[in-house]
Amino acid sequence: MKISNYHDTEPIRDVEGVLKRDIIGTDDGAPNFTMRFFEVDTGSSTPSHSHPFEHEIFILNGKGVVVGAQGSIPIGKGSVIFIAPDEPHCIVNTGNEHLEFICVIPSPNECSTEQ
Amino acid sequence: MKISNYHDTEPIRDVEGVLKRDIIGTDDGAPNFTMRFFEVDTGSSTPSHSHPFEHEIFILNGKGVVVGAQGSIPIGKGSVIFIAPDEPHCIVNTGNEHLEFICVIPSPNECSTEQ
Repeated sequence: MKISNYHDTEPIRDVEGVLKRDIIGTDDGAPNFTMRFFEVDTGSSTPSHSHPFEHEIFILNGKGVVVGAQGSIPIGKGSVIFIAPDEPHCIVNTGNEHLEFICVIPSPNECSTEQ
Repeated sequence: MKISNYHDTEPIRDVEGVLKRDIIGTDDGAPNFTMRFFEVDTGSSTPSHSHPFEHEIFILNGKGVVVGAQGSIPIGKGSVIFIAPDEPHCIVNTGNEHLEFICVIPSPNECSTEQ
């Protein structure tokens, strides 16, 4: 068992305006999937991209939109987002505070940071 | 892509004092893992049990303890909990408000509700 606070995990900023923490992953002995904590600055966005694995996302705080094949769909605290494998997507902070969310992916995988 | 609010998913109360929502799962086309949203009433607890699959948990609101082989460990908003396969565990609400958390498990699986 591992118990920590998400702040205990060092953040990575490999996209401008986006902080990522791998809060549970293979380093912890997690065999199947990785839980990440994201903070997106006001006006910033995750990369617009697709990949052959899914996302399961829960919005913790803030306001924004998910941009995909259906256009821009508003999201906020309590929103639940499932992005299927190979679906193009990005998440944009359109609010006035950090957009924070949990995003789970199967292991081992890593989202490309290419736009 | 599926976008909803966790409230849109009908809750199940198969344990006294515990509401569970399967907010993303195989019914949504999620191929590998299921995201659940739990609300534990003040003074209530998830079942004390173990199972051959892991939990990845993020605490959204409230205060409580995780009870496992190491004893009772305090948790609260922002806590991150990894429970490895076969580790005995339960989560107890010791605070004065709902204890809310996200718990992800590999699919297909279902936690037993036996104590």
